[in-house]
Amino acid sequence: MLSPESLGFVAGALITLGFIPQLIRVFKLKSAREISLLFNSSLLAGIILWLTYGIFLSLFPVILWNGIAAVLVAILLYAKLKYGRQ
Amino acid sequence: MLSPESLGFVAGALITLGFIPQLIRVFKLKSAREISLLFNSSLLAGIILWLTYGIFLSLFPVILWNGIAAVLVAILLYAKLKYGRQ
Repeated sequence: MLSPESLGFVAGALITLGFIPQLIRVFKLKSAREISLLFNSSLLAGIILWLTYGIFLSLFPVILWNGIAAVLVAILLYAKLKYGRQ
Repeated sequence: MLSPESLGFVAGALITLGFIPQLIRVFKLKSAREISLLFNSSLLAGIILWLTYGIFLSLFPVILWNGIAAVLVAILLYAKLKYGRQ
């Protein structure tokens, strides 16, 4: 039951799905002043690289969750650019 | 040069070190209203699970960066609780 594979699924789900309340919060407040642009960009670049890493090593949970996270973080970056230039 | 291992190192570095400007921003503004508490807690739980996943599969970059990220996200959670209750 507690295989590394299932751990990876739960870990990725927690992180990736956690971006949903963060996105809701920023869009609801229409403010992203506190979100660091450097954090956001660095995160997006890193997620795309993890996705590549997962593809190289055929780590399914890594591919799945980083693929979805890339989309969510791209939306957060859009929100930052729209609502909160530094 | 572009081994999966080195990819994992760069990916993890980008994400983990990206939390540093985010922490600086929140501590400087003394405000964490826009940071979702659910995002922050979910992120911390997920990072701890990725760390466990990395230990199970002996994935060194996963262990290294998630270990450091856990500390940084714990500090962000502290900042959220201190500066911005929902």
